This record gives sequence, structure tokens and C-alpha cells, in this order.
Amino acid sequence: MADTSPSHANHVVVPVTPSTIHWGYFSHTLKPIAAVASGDLVTIETLTHHAYDDHARMIAGDPGAESVFHWTNAGKNVERRGAGPMDASIHGRGAGEGFGVHICTGPIYVQGAEPGDVLEVRIVDVRPRACRNPAFAGRAFGSNAAAWWGFHYNDLLTEPKPREVITIYEIDAAGGRNWARAVYSYRWVPQTDPFGVVHRTIVYPGVPVDHTRVEEKHGILKDARIPMRPHFGVIAVAPKEAEFVDSVPPGYFGGNVDDWRIGKGAVMYYPVAVPGALFSVGDPHASQGDAELCGTAIECSLTGTFQLILHKRHCLAGTPLAGLDYPLLETPDEWVVHGFSFANYLVEFGDQAQTEIFAKSSLDSAMRDAFRKMRRFLMTAKGLSEDEAISLMSVAVDFGVTQVVDANWGVHAILKKSIFAGETG
Amino acid sequence: MADTSPSHANHVVVPVTPSTIHWGYFSHTLKPIAAVASGDLVTIETLTHHAYDDHARMIAGDPGAESVFHWTNAGKNVERRGAGPMDASIHGRGAGEGFGVHICTGPIYVQGAEPGDVLEVRIVDVRPRACRNPAFAGRAFGSNAAAWWGFHYNDLLTEPKPREVITIYEIDAAGGRNWARAVYSYRWVPQTDPFGVVHRTIVYPGVPVDHTRVEEKHGILKDARIPMRPHFGVIAVAPKEAEFVDSVPPGYFGGNVDDWRIGKGAVMYYPVAVPGALFSVGDPHASQGDAELCGTAIECSLTGTFQLILHKRHCLAGTPLAGLDYPLLETPDEWVVHGFSFANYLVEFGDQAQTEIFAKSSLDSAMRDAFRKMRRFLMTAKGLSEDEAISLMSVAVDFGVTQVVDANWGVHAILKKSIFAGETG
Repeated sequence: MADTSPSHANHVVVPVTPSTIHWGYFSHTLKPIAAVASGDLVTIETLTHHAYDDHARMIAGDPGAESVFHWTNAGKNVERRGAGPMDASIHGRGAGEGFGVHICTGPIYVQGAEPGDVLEVRIVDVRPRACRNPAFAGRAFGSNAAAWWGFHYNDLLTEPKPREVITIYEIDAAGGRNWARAVYSYRWVPQTDPFGVVHRTIVYPGVPVDHTRVEEKHGILKDARIPMRPHFGVIAVAPKEAEFVDSVPPGYFGGNVDDWRIGKGAVMYYPVAVPGALFSVGDPHASQGDAELCGTAIECSLTGTFQLILHKRHCLAGTPLAGLDYPLLETPDEWVVHGFSFANYLVEFGDQAQTEIFAKSSLDSAMRDAFRKMRRFLMTAKGLSEDEAISLMSVAVDFGVTQVVDANWGVHAILKKSIFAGETG
Repeated sequence: MADTSPSHANHVVVPVTPSTIHWGYFSHTLKPIAAVASGDLVTIETLTHHAYDDHARMIAGDPGAESVFHWTNAGKNVERRGAGPMDASIHGRGAGEGFGVHICTGPIYVQGAEPGDVLEVRIVDVRPRACRNPAFAGRAFGSNAAAWWGFHYNDLLTEPKPREVITIYEIDAAGGRNWARAVYSYRWVPQTDPFGVVHRTIVYPGVPVDHTRVEEKHGILKDARIPMRPHFGVIAVAPKEAEFVDSVPPGYFGGNVDDWRIGKGAVMYYPVAVPGALFSVGDPHASQGDAELCGTAIECSLTGTFQLILHKRHCLAGTPLAGLDYPLLETPDEWVVHGFSFANYLVEFGDQAQTEIFAKSSLDSAMRDAFRKMRRFLMTAKGLSEDEAISLMSVAVDFGVTQVVDANWGVHAILKKSIFAGETG
């Protein structure tokens, strides 16, 4: 929406290291790892927090991944994993308690960004992170965990019930093949972390999986080609409401939106809540279906190139960004608004927000929120009356299930740009 | 799925007349209007029950429509409108009470069809019903009612609240233009029917709208081109559970599924519940968005050509149709399963089914049903294990909101055929 050209912009490259990430939470108190001006490009490496599901394929030989995941009985390179207490006094899982799971690269400070502004994020490129293990040269891998937080978990047909199952997928690291395939799967068995804590289910991110203790099942999904949809599950600006915000529930600040349309060529708009915006990216996915049914996508480390463009508050009136208070997606063909069970759970639930949100989600309220947001978009950005907006929504806007696994469930609404592309004469 | 070729089939043509329709209900007690053999073609005229929203554009000069909608103080040509009592003892709206609203053409008896079989319905063609009023030659029209049963109704921003608004849309009757445009809108005001009953809201189908009492607002949605998606909101086989079944809530028998994908080139599969299947079609739509937010689509009379193919129960094992107990859609590129808040509300709620279903709908339970149906489809039709099916659903199946306005709310799940189209090597 701005005329900022990449050719006049700086380009910052952010490798993924223990010092460029925050794991499992957003915080407006984090020290920025870089600062950029509006219009600058930034290339950001991201790691999937599921990489330890297959160390050989997703960590081994990769200095960034090895360093971030490093964890021996002598210590972790990244101690805090989640928004919980450092002393793990609630569940004893470990520092941060796994209240939030995503490895987020950032935050990046956007010069001049102030609360009330809008940060435009153009996703210029998305590339898989190639496996650095010579045994798997030319390939990249991802993990799909059918986990306890999945929609299916208490509704299984076959024994043993319940169970968690990891499926490892392979993709073409060079991008020449537009589909992924399953390599093998295994059932999660209790894993003892280097500090001696036993994890009976997938409750803490980055726990090393001992492959001598799991049974790999090969030859699965052997005729299935999974269409590639590389995207970032998490893109966020820092919320202002709490010092540590669990990375799992999405909200007005973006975060774990988990819409597969947020890939190359897409543009996201976020309402800036704190000075500098504090932009972070994580939860990279090779592909995902609408709903993210079993709890995860093909969780696969990716590198993205983004152009960040700041829209100042006083320039928003009369644009589609006026009054924006949620993560808005623009693709070449569509506008997509994101509704949640609770539009701003951090405010709606007050002090108990970060626990209550896990108990109360419903698609019905997410549908309500998506309806209200699309109505507002049509009235604000397209100048329609309420009656025009409501009729148009019923005959031409598509509502879909974004996810049912991130505590604050999501429904999105898709408006085709072609509807307004021509005169009707 | 069968090798039945249209060239060897009979072709039955069913005009829409008072004697070829049933209005607002399904019933296994209805006398068939025609009988066909498996493989036969049938061309079926359908009328939108919203045609009287604009008599000049959707009824005038059209013998079929004029006859079906005929209603003077001397009587109606079609008395029963809905599954309720003939004496309107509950609300006094009129015979049938408007408990069900859709004008359904049929039923058609399929020779040899028995409970447990599956009826395949190939939608060979869908054509708009041209306006017969010379003032509007070459055009066809539809009505969108933002009505009391819409998702928006108790959640309006602007006065007067609440309100019902009709928007009339125009399409190209020859099909040369692939978009619809709005012509005008008006707010519903109380309408007195020819029997003297006042209808303060849109509670009874076919009530004549007196245009001297409404204020037409022109120049609306003037830059909007609504993409055409001609389809039938209602395609049904007769349910066995009750003598008169309200046409509004969809169910295992199909009915008011309201999925815009059920158009030309699509194939539907329905579980046969009664001898002869008793196939009916109605609720024609020129276009609709996923969710059908305000309660209706562009309700627009259409004519469809269908090929009906019977799959006998004993031939279903090992096919995607084995155990089918819901309306399944096949398009050239996709398989789509339809989940509902209640998979079979007629059984689940027993005697009170037809009232209870209006009180209890939720997208959450519809999502649950869609998950279970897609899991079963993947395990039955594609031979996957439960774990394979669940992983695939999370990474490659898209769940969307079918409708939130038909009492038994819908979530569909879309599986791309291309996933299984090639060897992964």
C-alpha cells in the first residue's frame, strides 16, 4: 500500500541463534535484536520447535539449530521455554513451563513505530531450511505431531487411546517439487529430558526424543502427495497487556494465527501496540490444512524475507487500515480477516486471561468475531452501508475454520478483490 | 463411478407446476411425480421460494411461477407450505406454518432403490430461469433476504434494529456474464397476505410483497460484481423418520445443505432411506458465500439436468461409498464431506427433533462431525490407518463453514483428489 521500493531499502539478515530468539512467549520487555526503518528488508531464519522429533533430519549438522536446541545435564543454551515461571513451580516441566512453545526470531524494532500505527509486513520470500546432515542432502524435513491439544485427541477410534503420534515429512529443499511426502511415524513414549524430568506427553518444547525408545513405522501415507503451502504460523508484534504472553493463543497482535495463506506474496497488517512494534517470526510450516486439526502443521524450519512498512496513525483514515485492531491479510487476490473466539482475550479475561483462554474457546464466537470484522472492513475499506455489507457477506464472502487447536480458536473470512475490480455498468 | 452413459438413458423433463412440487417439507408419503431408472437423465425446473420478493422480475409472465405462487382470497394453488399443521394452529401463519420454506420439485422415484443403497446424482447442467416479463428480457433475478434467522440479526450496528432487508440481484440469463449485480434493496415492512394474516417478519414463504408499501433503494453495491456460483441449496432423498420433515435443517438425507459447490459438474451421493429414494430438488441459488451469513443466498430460480445412478447396497463394499450415511460431494478436483451440528437430528432428538434442532446448533459440534466423517472417508475410501488419516487431515484437508443459518449448522471438509493422484516414488 506504500510506494516504498526495496531498491532503496536496507537489508538486514537475522540468523537463528540462542541470542536472536525468544522461545514460547512474546514480551514488550525484550531487547530488540535489530532495528530497521520503514521500507527495509529483513531476512529471518526460523526454526520449528518440533525439530527434536527427528534430530538427525532437523538438527544434526545445522549450527543454528544445534545451538538453539542444545540441552545437556549441564544446561540449556536457551533456558526459558514459555511464558511461565522460571522455576517451573506449577508443573515442573522446566523453565517457562512450556506455557507457549514457538521459537520466535526477533524482536525487531521498527524505528518510529508507536501504538496506534499499523505495521505492514510484506512476505517477499519463504524458503525451506535445508537439512545439513549429509545423509539427507538436498532435502528438508518437518514434523507433524498429533498431540494432546489436537481436536481429535479424546475422540479416537483405535487403541491405544489416547495416544500422540509424530509423523515426519520430507520436502524438496530446492523447492523443485511442490509436494511433501511422509517418511515415517512413531508413537510418543515418555521421554526423560537431560535434567531428569519425564515428559509423558508432548508438554515441553525441545525435549530430545530418544529414537532408541520409539518404534519408527515406515511405508505410511505412501501414495499421498501433500501440497506445499510454506508459511509462518506465528508473525507477531508485541502485545502490551502483559510482560510475558504465551505464544499459543493468537490475538489482536497476530501471533499464532496459523493461516496457511500467510506465505510468499502475502501481506499482513498488524496494529502496533508498543514502541518499535517489536516484530517476531516463528512457527514455520511447510503445509497445513484449514483447522490444523491434530494440533500441528508440517512443522518445518523456514527462512523468510520480509519488507516492513510503517503506516503512521494519522495516515490511516480513509484507508482499509483505519481502526485496524486485528491481524489483516492481503493476498494478490483476496482480503482475509481473522476472527477469534475472543478478539482480545488479554483484555477480556483480565488477570486470568492466560489460563481462561484455554477453557473457553468456540468456533461460534470466532464466527461472530469474523462476521463483525468483515462487516467493519466492508464498511470502512469499501464504503458500504451495513445492509450492503451484510448482503455481500452472505452471497460472496467465504468463512472458513482457521484452527481449532490454539486455545483462541479462529475463523477467517475471505473477500475476493475481483468483486470490486471492475465497474458493473 | 458407474459406466452408465447418457446416450443410453431416458430423459425425463419435469416442469415446475403446483402438481410437481412440495413446499417446505420432505415426506416419504408423497406420491412420486415421475419414475426413472438408474442412468436416466432428468431435467428439473425449480423455483426460488423468494420469488414474490419481486413479482415483476421473478413471477410475472412465467406460467409456472405464476401458478405455483397463485394466492388470492379465494385460495392458494399450493396450500401446504411447511411441515406444520394444515390448520396453522401454532402460529397462525398459514397451512404448514412455514415450518420449512423451500419449493422442492419432485419427488422422483428411482426404480429399484431400496434403503441402504446409495443414490448418485450427477449435476450435468444448471441454467438460470429467464425472466418472462418483457420489461426485463434477457435477464434473470434473485433475492437475498437478510432475515430474522440470519447470523447477523441480533447483532446490528445501525438503526432500526432489528430489521430485515431484501436485496434484489440481476444476472445474465444467457450465462454470458459470470457475475451478478445488485439492483435495489428494501426493508421488509409488515405484509398482509390474501387471507388477511399480517406477516411482520419473513415467517411464511410466498407471501406477496406489496411494492407500494416498501421503499426501493437503488444505487446500492454499485461497484460490486458477485461471482456466479449457480447451485441447488436443496437436493434430497426422502428421510424415513417422520411423515413431514421441515425442509430447513439439513441431514443425512441431504436437503438444505447449502454448499455452493453443489453446482454444474458436481456429483452428490445420498444414502437411500426409503423405497424409490424419492429424489427432490429446490432452493436454487445464483451464488452464495460459505456460511450464508444473513440467512439466504442469491435465491434465484434455476433449471437443472441430473443423471441419477443407483448403487446397490451389496456393491458398496470397498468403494468410497461404503457405509455412507451423509451427503457426500465429489467435484472434478475434490471430495467434500458435510458435517452437521447433529449428524442425524431426526434420530438424536426423537419426538422433539423438529423443534429441538432449532435451539441447539453449534459450529463446534459440526466441526466434530466433519472431522469424524472425513476420518472415516480416508480410512474407508483411501485405506488409511487412523493415524495416517489424522495426520493428513491436519496438514492437507481444509475445513470450512458451510452455513450458520439452517438450524443444523454445517462444517464441510475438503480433500483434494490430487493428493492421491500420483505415485510419490
